[in-house]
Amino acid sequence: MTIQPRLLSDSERIDWLRLIRCENVGPVTFFRLLERFGSAASALAALPDLARRGGRTKPIKICSKARAEAELDDAARLGARAVCSGEPDFPALLAATDGAPPLLYVRGHSSLFGRPCIGMVGARSASAGARQFARKMAWDLGQAGVTVVSGLARGLDTAAHDGSLETGTVAVVAGGVDIIYPPENAGLYHRIVEMGAVVSEMPPGTEPQARHFPRRNRIISGMSAGVVVVEATARSGSLITARYAAEQGREVFAVPGSPMDARAAGPNGLIKDGAVLTQGAGDILDLLDDLLRRPFREPPGERFSGPAPAIPDESALVRARRDVLEALGPIPVTVDEIIRQCQLSPSVVSMILLELELAGRLERHPGHRVSFLPEA
Amino acid sequence: MTIQPRLLSDSERIDWLRLIRCENVGPVTFFRLLERFGSAASALAALPDLARRGGRTKPIKICSKARAEAELDDAARLGARAVCSGEPDFPALLAATDGAPPLLYVRGHSSLFGRPCIGMVGARSASAGARQFARKMAWDLGQAGVTVVSGLARGLDTAAHDGSLETGTVAVVAGGVDIIYPPENAGLYHRIVEMGAVVSEMPPGTEPQARHFPRRNRIISGMSAGVVVVEATARSGSLITARYAAEQGREVFAVPGSPMDARAAGPNGLIKDGAVLTQGAGDILDLLDDLLRRPFREPPGERFSGPAPAIPDESALVRARRDVLEALGPIPVTVDEIIRQCQLSPSVVSMILLELELAGRLERHPGHRVSFLPEA
Repeated sequence: MTIQPRLLSDSERIDWLRLIRCENVGPVTFFRLLERFGSAASALAALPDLARRGGRTKPIKICSKARAEAELDDAARLGARAVCSGEPDFPALLAATDGAPPLLYVRGHSSLFGRPCIGMVGARSASAGARQFARKMAWDLGQAGVTVVSGLARGLDTAAHDGSLETGTVAVVAGGVDIIYPPENAGLYHRIVEMGAVVSEMPPGTEPQARHFPRRNRIISGMSAGVVVVEATARSGSLITARYAAEQGREVFAVPGSPMDARAAGPNGLIKDGAVLTQGAGDILDLLDDLLRRPFREPPGERFSGPAPAIPDESALVRARRDVLEALGPIPVTVDEIIRQCQLSPSVVSMILLELELAGRLERHPGHRVSFLPEA
Repeated sequence: MTIQPRLLSDSERIDWLRLIRCENVGPVTFFRLLERFGSAASALAALPDLARRGGRTKPIKICSKARAEAELDDAARLGARAVCSGEPDFPALLAATDGAPPLLYVRGHSSLFGRPCIGMVGARSASAGARQFARKMAWDLGQAGVTVVSGLARGLDTAAHDGSLETGTVAVVAGGVDIIYPPENAGLYHRIVEMGAVVSEMPPGTEPQARHFPRRNRIISGMSAGVVVVEATARSGSLITARYAAEQGREVFAVPGSPMDARAAGPNGLIKDGAVLTQGAGDILDLLDDLLRRPFREPPGERFSGPAPAIPDESALVRARRDVLEALGPIPVTVDEIIRQCQLSPSVVSMILLELELAGRLERHPGHRVSFLPEA
C-alpha cells in the first residue's frame, strides 16, 4: 500500500508547533502523543493531566497559540516555511527515522529533498587537499542528480556546499534558519538560500549551541541515503554523524587517508568497521540505486491517521505505574524489557512512560531505551 | 600427526639440485616426479624415457652431477647454503605453497624463518612519508618478535629492511644470492647478510631479469603469514605479491592513503577487496596468532616419503595419451576437467601430463590448470 503524504491545515500546523514546543515534549514523545490522541489538538488538551499523573506537581508549560503563531510569522517574514513530517515537502527519509523533528523550517528549494540525498561531513580543519577532493566529489554527485547535504560549517562542509551549489545543496544548520554560523559563511549562506535550501528544526532567531549540533547531524544523516566522511579526527563530530547514519540504516562512506595524518583516523576507523571505502563520487553512485531501494519505515506522520487506540482506565494504571517506576533506574533499559518485567501490555507501559516523560522524570535514549531522571 | 622435517644427505641434495636444473622441470613437475619415483635419483633416471614418450625427439637436457656440484661449491664459497624443501631450515610456510622452489640458497641466519614472518612490499617510488611509516612499522613488528620479509628493492623495501635490521630481516632477491641489486643497496645487503638473511632460488651469479621478479614475490608471500602493502600504484608489482598472498591463503594487509595520491590506489583497492586496513604494526600483531593457527598444507617435501605409487603399464598409457592430448588445447583447463573428460585415473593423467611437460609441450598455470604448447 502506498501512503499518500498529506498537507496539514493552518490550524493543524499551529497545533503541531504548539505541541513540539511544550515543556518536556521531544520528537519521540510528540509522535507517541499523536499516536495516542489522534491529533496534536487532543494531545495538547490531555497534556496537563498526563504530566500530573506522571508525578509533576507544578503545571506543565504549554506553548500558547499566540506564541506558535508569532513563531510562524517570524519564519514567514524570513522567507522560511514550516514543513511538517508527512507533508510532501518534508524529507521522506528523515520522516522515517526515530527521533526526527516533527517540524522543519526551510529557506529555499524544498524540491531538492525529493532527489537522492547524500550527506558529506568532515573536519572543520580539513586539509586543503581534502577540501579540493570534497568540492570535486560534491560536484560529481551534483552532476549525477544527487543533492549534497552538509552542515554549513567551516572546512569540509564549506567545500561540499561549494562544489554542489550549482546543482543543489542543502545546509542543515544547528541554530535558527536565519542565523548565519560561522559568520564568514554569510556569502555561501545567501547563495544556498537562492539556489539550494537551508534547513533547521529550531525556532527562528535561535543561536546555535554545542548541544544543538548532534541533533543537526542526525538531520543530515536522516535525510540522506548515505553519508560520506572525508576527513575526521578520532574524536570528531563527523563520527557521531556516521554513527547516526549507521543507526538509521544509512550507508556510511569513508574516504581513506594516510595513517600519518590524524585527520584520516576517523574515516580509516570507519572503513575498518565496515564503511564503504570511497575514492570518489563513483563509489557512492555505484551503490545509490541499491540504497534507494532499501526498505525505509513509513513516515510516522501517517501512523496516527487511523482511530486512536483505547486509553487504559485509571484503576489499571495506578498499580501499573508503581511497577514501571520500580523497573526504571538511572541505567537505561529497553522498553521491551520493562514490558516483560512488569507483565503489562505495551500500550499501558507506553502510556506510563509518556506521563513520566511529560513530568520531566524520563529520559529517552537511542535503541528504544529509557532511564529514570532523579528530581532536579 | 606431526611431520618431522628431515635433513637430506649430500648426495640427495645434489640429486635435488640436478633435477630442478633439468630442462623443462619446474617446481610443480619437480614434486610430481619426486612423488612418482620416490627420490630425485630415480626421477633423473626416468626423465629421458618420460620426455620421449611425451613427444620429445631430441634428448632432454639433464643437469650433470658435476654441474650441480660446481653450483653448490660456488654457493659455499659465497657463504650461502642450499636448503631443500622439508629440511628444518627451509621456510615451513613456503614449503606448503604450490609452485614453491624445491631448493633455496640462504646467506645469513636461516633461524629467522622459524619466527612468524610478515612480508612488507610497496612502491619503489614510495613517498618519504610512506618510507618513514614503513620503517616504523618494520621496527615495531621486529620488536614484537616478527621477521620482516621484503625484496631489497628501492623505496619501500629498503625502508622495511632498514627498520627491522636490528631484530632480523629477510631479503628475498630475484637474481643470485650474491648479486646486489639495486647497486646502491650494497651497504644494506651486507648488513642483512650479517644480521639477517638473503634468500634466492636462482643459481649464484644469476643476474636478475624482469621475469624473475614475480617468482621472487611469490617467495616473499609464501614464507609470510601475511603481506602488508604500503604504497602501490594501481599497476604495481606489489599488487601481484598481494594476489599471490591471497592465493596462498595468506592475509593481505594494506595501508590506506588519500585518493588524491596515485600510490594509495593499490592499497585502497585491496582494502575494498577485503584486505585488512592497517594503520600500524598493531593491526597486524592483533591478527598474528590467528594467522599462525591457520591450517597450512603439509610440506610437499614429505609427501613422497612413502612407497612410490605404481606406474601404469605402457599399453594402458598409449591410448590414454591420445585422449589427454585431445583434451588439451591452448586455453588452460583444470587437471580435474581432463580426468573427467578422458575417464582416466588421476595417476594416469598425472603421468601423461608429466611426460608432456618434460617434452616441453605443457604449460602449468595457477589453479591446477594446464595448457598445450605448440611446437616452438
